Amino acid sequence: MQKTKVTISILLVVVTGAAAIGDTPSVAYPSSYRNWQHVKSMIIEPSHSLADPFEGIHHVYGNAKAMQGLAAGQYKRGAVFVFDLLAIEEVDATVAEADRKRIDVMEYDAERFAETGGWGFVTFVGDSTTERLEQDVVTACYACHVAAKPSAYVFSKYRK
Amino acid sequence: MQKTKVTISILLVVVTGAAAIGDTPSVAYPSSYRNWQHVKSMIIEPSHSLADPFEGIHHVYGNAKAMQGLAAGQYKRGAVFVFDLLAIEEVDATVAEADRKRIDVMEYDAERFAETGGWGFVTFVGDSTTERLEQDVVTACYACHVAAKPSAYVFSKYRK
Repeated sequence: MQKTKVTISILLVVVTGAAAIGDTPSVAYPSSYRNWQHVKSMIIEPSHSLADPFEGIHHVYGNAKAMQGLAAGQYKRGAVFVFDLLAIEEVDATVAEADRKRIDVMEYDAERFAETGGWGFVTFVGDSTTERLEQDVVTACYACHVAAKPSAYVFSKYRK
Repeated sequence: MQKTKVTISILLVVVTGAAAIGDTPSVAYPSSYRNWQHVKSMIIEPSHSLADPFEGIHHVYGNAKAMQGLAAGQYKRGAVFVFDLLAIEEVDATVAEADRKRIDVMEYDAERFAETGGWGFVTFVGDSTTERLEQDVVTACYACHVAAKPSAYVFSKYRK
């Protein structure tokens, strides 16, 4: 009986610890996103107000639930978009893709990410699948996406 | 018996007609290509030697067999790449996608397209799924792709 009590106490500590870390719910690295549907692309030039940090060419990819949501105008749990940002280089009258700068991921879960419109945000640095950019996602991501609230906080529009 | 002969004769005429059209083996419209894997993108600027007709932003998509071939360096029947060309417009220090200009399709079949390196070529105009650009694909497509013969006539390189 004594032993059982101790075990329960240890478990409680572990669970409490996890809850504390869970104050910022995490978004996983989207391992297969390069196989997802390509939604659209855009180049942000050096003189753009968001050039720091978004200068370069970005491609937006969506998983199946994200594409369904984009068509419906509302999202279900598990919808994920990736904003894949590459540096660009001008070569012989072309603008070509260069190194990956970062990927920004937004994942929908109305419960887990209730404080930021139902979307969780994370940035992975360069090609890393593990190195997350340390940032306050409320100011770094959500504050800007609020402008797209009428389209469920998603800037991309569906294009054929 | 008389009637059967007549029917066979008509069938022969129809088959012969199809064979004549078949002198230029046709490549079908790739109806689901926007769901295929996005391989890479590039902008061709007005001063580029290929600006007519390729000025704009192009995205290359590959079906599953094309992606396998890109990794292997050789292709199997049914591999298809699409070069999806959109006009671009500069808006507020961004370069954004505008209307689709054309899609260029290359499909691999070593037998049907033996005369052009195993690849069949076709161009569909704008968003049309039926309007094919009238062109001599040997000079308009193959003559340029010959430069990529070491990579099985494919210009795109795999990028992560």
